[in-house]
This record gives sequence, C-alpha cells and structure tokens, in this order.
Amino acid sequence: MGIRILITGGTFDKEYNELTGELFFKDTHLSEMLILGRCRVKVDVRTLMMIDSLDMTDEDRVMIADHCNKSNEKKIIITHGTDTMADTAKFLAARIKDKTVVLTGAMIPYKFGSSDGLFNLGSAMAFVQSLQPGVYVAMNGKCFNWDNVRKNKKTGEFEEVDGR
Amino acid sequence: MGIRILITGGTFDKEYNELTGELFFKDTHLSEMLILGRCRVKVDVRTLMMIDSLDMTDEDRVMIADHCNKSNEKKIIITHGTDTMADTAKFLAARIKDKTVVLTGAMIPYKFGSSDGLFNLGSAMAFVQSLQPGVYVAMNGKCFNWDNVRKNKKTGEFEEVDGR
Amino acid sequence: MGIRILITGGTFDKEYNELTGELFFKDTHLSEMLILGRCRVKVDVRTLMMIDSLDMTDEDRVMIADHCNKSNEKKIIITHGTDTMADTAKFLAARIKDKTVVLTGAMIPYKFGSSDGLFNLGSAMAFVQSLQPGVYVAMNGKCFNWDNVRKNKKTGEFEEVDGR
Amino acid sequence: MGIRILITGGTFDKEYNELTGELFFKDTHLSEMLILGRCRVKVDVRTLMMIDSLDMTDEDRVMIADHCNKSNEKKIIITHGTDTMADTAKFLAARIKDKTVVLTGAMIPYKFGSSDGLFNLGSAMAFVQSLQPGVYVAMNGKCFNWDNVRKNKKTGEFEEVDGR
Repeated sequence: MGIRILITGGTFDKEYNELTGELFFKDTHLSEMLILGRCRVKVDVRTLMMIDSLDMTDEDRVMIADHCNKSNEKKIIITHGTDTMADTAKFLAARIKDKTVVLTGAMIPYKFGSSDGLFNLGSAMAFVQSLQPGVYVAMNGKCFNWDNVRKNKKTGEFEEVDGR
Repeated sequence: MGIRILITGGTFDKEYNELTGELFFKDTHLSEMLILGRCRVKVDVRTLMMIDSLDMTDEDRVMIADHCNKSNEKKIIITHGTDTMADTAKFLAARIKDKTVVLTGAMIPYKFGSSDGLFNLGSAMAFVQSLQPGVYVAMNGKCFNWDNVRKNKKTGEFEEVDGR
Repeated sequence: MGIRILITGGTFDKEYNELTGELFFKDTHLSEMLILGRCRVKVDVRTLMMIDSLDMTDEDRVMIADHCNKSNEKKIIITHGTDTMADTAKFLAARIKDKTVVLTGAMIPYKFGSSDGLFNLGSAMAFVQSLQPGVYVAMNGKCFNWDNVRKNKKTGEFEEVDGR
Repeated sequence: MGIRILITGGTFDKEYNELTGELFFKDTHLSEMLILGRCRVKVDVRTLMMIDSLDMTDEDRVMIADHCNKSNEKKIIITHGTDTMADTAKFLAARIKDKTVVLTGAMIPYKFGSSDGLFNLGSAMAFVQSLQPGVYVAMNGKCFNWDNVRKNKKTGEFEEVDGR
C-alpha cells in the first residue's frame, strides 16, 4: 500500500509571473520534487486545490477531510500553506481516524532555488511511514502533534504551544 | 537531547575543482543544508573523515562505531557514500546497541544543484527521530533495516535483498 | 579605466520575504553575480536606489544622469527595472554626451534561480566595452539604441519601435 | 542574418554520471541557456563534437575552420573547453577571413548551478554582434584578440600575453 499525497497549494507551489511581477499558482511541482529526491516509495498524487492557505475555507477543509477518509491509503501527506496549516490539522484531527496524516509546506517556493520544500517533503515522507495514526505537522525538521503546534508569525517557525 | 550527525564524506559533499576538472572534498555542506531546510532540531555535527566510501577501511568503520558508542546522543545520522553504505550499516549493527543510527547520502553532490541530498537529509532527520533503536539506511524516500538492504549498481537505487 | 556600474533596483535585485510572502529589496546581488561570472574587468559598483522602475520619478532620473556625468569612467552600466527602462534611456540620452551607457535588467529575480539576469549582465558588460558613446538598452541578447526601443508588455520582450 | 553557434564540448556541457561518479558529455545545454537568457537573437546551433579540449586534434580544428568558412553567417560563436581555447583561436585566425568568430566556454559545468557559463554566453553573444571581423576569446567578462591571449593555469583566468 502506497502513500496518498494531496496538493492544496501554499508557498510550496507558488511561481513568479514575469509579466506582472506577481506570485501565482500554475501546476504543482510535487512530482518533479519526488524525481529529484529519487523517491521510490509508491505514491498517488492528487491536486485538490491550488490556493493560498489564508484563502482556505471550512468547505475546502471538509473536502480535504472527505478525500482523506475515502482514500484507500492509510498514510497521507498534505501539502499546505503555512499560515493556516495548524488550523487545518486541528480540523482534520476531529474528522479522521485510523490514518496517519502529515501536513507539510514551505517558507520559500520550490521554484525559487533556496527553498526548504525538498527538505520538508523528505521529512514528511519519512514521518508518514514511521508514525502511528494521527494528524501531524512536519516542518523545521520536526514533527508536531495536531493539538500542540502553531506557527510563530515573527520567526516563521513552527513551535509547540506554550505551557506544554 | 539532540541528534548527533557524523560526516564521513561521499558524493553528498563532493565539489568540482575548476582548475583540474576533478571532483574533490573540501568542507561538508551539512550545516548549510540544515539552514536551507530551516531545521530547528538540536544537532551536533562532527566531521570524522571526508572520503569516498570505496576507500573506507574497517579501521575507519571502527572509528565510526566508537564515536557512535561514545556519543551522548541516542539518535545519530551518518552521511556516507552510497557504494559501501550497506556494508557500513552491517558493520555498525554488530557493534552498536540501544541507539538509533540512520545512514544517508546522495547520488548527486549537493553543490551541483540537482541533488537528492536535501530530500535524503530531510527523511534521515525524520526517521532518526521516529524509529526504535537499530541501524538503518535512509535512501530513495525509504528506510531499510541494516540486514535487508543493498545498492543496485545498475539503477543506483537501494532495495531490499531478494527473497525477503 | 574601468566600468562604473550603477544600481537602481528592478526585478534583478528583488527577493522573497518569507514572513510576508511579498517581494522586496534588500541588497544588490551585482557583486555576487560578477564573482559567479568570474568577471575580471575592473568595476566600481554604486547603489543609487533600490526601487521598482514603475516608482522611478524624473528626480530619480536626474540623479542618475548626474552620477553618469560626474563619473570618471567613460563606460557605465545601469541596472534598472524593465517597465520604464526605455523611458530612462531616452531621458539619459538627452543629458549625457561622450559616454557609453548600457541599461540592463531582468525578467526574473536573480535569487529565483531561473533568472535571465546573469546572461543580461554578461551581454551588458560586453556591449559597454565594445560600443561607441551613446545610450543603449541590452536585453534579450540584443542591444537597442535609446531612440528605437520599447518593452512589449504582452511578451515581456524588448523590440525595436514599429516603422523603423 | 543571424548568428551561427558551433558546439565543441568543454566544461560548459559536462554532466555528472551518478552511477559512475564521473563527468561525461551527453547533449549540449546551449539552447536551454538561450531560453533562460530570453535571447531573441536569431541563432543556428550546430554540434560539431562533444569533447574535452585537451583531446582536440588538428583534424578537429580543420573541421571547425571548414564549418566557419562554409557558414552563411558572418558572425559565429564557438563553445570550447578552456584548456586549448587560445590554441584553437590561433589556428582559426590563420584560416578564417571576413568573419567575426568568438570562442567562449566555462570553468564550471552549466548543470552544476554555480557556473560562469551563462554570463560568458551573454558576453560572447554581445561581442560577436559588436566586433569587427577577427577571431576572439570571450572569457572573464573580457574580449581577447586571438594573438594576445592565454589561460593562466594557476588562476584559471584568461589574460593577455606578457610584454604586450
């Protein structure tokens, strides 16, 4: 049984439009990244949406949860913008049982050369294979449980919630 | 308690000498890669040697085993050339107990832009945190036990040994 | 006598702010690019401003013209945003005599990996050494006279003005 | 009338064979580089050979001279290994009249990310369009006449011959 990878957009997949000077979404770079990483794990990649995570609605999250629940695979990676990644993790944890779900993303677009995306994808791929069922966030080389993670807006890093 | 990272060389850290046109070792790029990956796991990086793994002797492997055994950390990543990575894994498994040791490397030098190294480092970082004590090889997005792994010289990929 | 290089900003030098997801200016990458190109021409690099060329005013252009006229060097490269590069060329042509001035820029930021900036800088460096006094735009591997160039907004390419 | 580009190999086009760990030639990256540079000059690219310039024989040089002489284009760029680039320039200068021929190359393979190749190609493209008929070497941001250039083996840089 392989791994299901669900694409939702986020910085990970943003590109630079040289005519307008703006960032935009075209296609996901996930398959290209797996080839670069010479990944030989069996995967099934599906693009659910290509959006900035600040624009993600609860309807979007319901759709993601549905896809996770209907997926044959027990192990699922979700690429996601970092701004609401922790929110989506909480949302999914309330709706998904008996599956290992790992959300990951990037601070810099993969196409910009200096991205953390390939490192994060490598760690997400490893955590999803190793961990017990549950919903996790894989960022900064760490794995966080859904109920103990937030993005520090000042540093751009993920951290455990204070007091735990 | 953080993670000990031991550098031994391998393709991972090779560079191009523009005066001679040959590949050579200078310094490790490990710290640069962890910064690129925005890794916030506590690590202690030590360079033990900078050699092609085809040149690694059993004396070298004894030194690596000694470092692992004397390390305070219970979790250890070893960067290593791919040609004899499986041999070193077997060698270490016979000498190290109660520690999680993950060997990883790259097919393309990190400095060459199209390297699998960052992906592999991300996965090694995740596996070493998740897995029970033992000696493992993390390549191609997979984790192999020391007693069931070999490099396929034709494809350049790691695989389980036939018949298992 | 070397070459004076004046920095004004433009896409060339834009960077990605990973905390806000916006593009911004920090320092110029010009010196880094000359090192990458192993350029051994004597240059003197000065940053005049770091702005989007759509924000460039005639006061800014007066300052650029003054710098060109006061410069000891007879050969000057100006890095500039592409949107108003042709306008600035015309402005400078009316104010600078007896110097070879070459404006260049990029469609993609240098830091984004897939930039045309290094190619353009190489061609600007060559044109400024080869051409007679005058004001030129070096983009798309071509050199345009100040009075016969415009940016085609649809294609993002520079072209001669129709009818010539 | 466009520009003829003749490919002969050299560091420019070397790639890394991840199975053997050796450098080798496959296809030229010239067209890919012109696309990256958004070059809109009309060019006709021909691969004559893909060899290390230390392996280039006088028979090879005769073939290159023949191609230059038979080419309809008056302006020709030749990509070439750096070790014998100055020798080939001298050889061609004795056999080609009334054409502008610019030899260029790279110290680092284009595919290795940190290459000077794109900068050199940009400068060669500009020099070939600007200069009078003759044979030149375009390296290090400079243009050298065929009778006053050599590669300094210690620094890897091109320089004028002493005493001139």
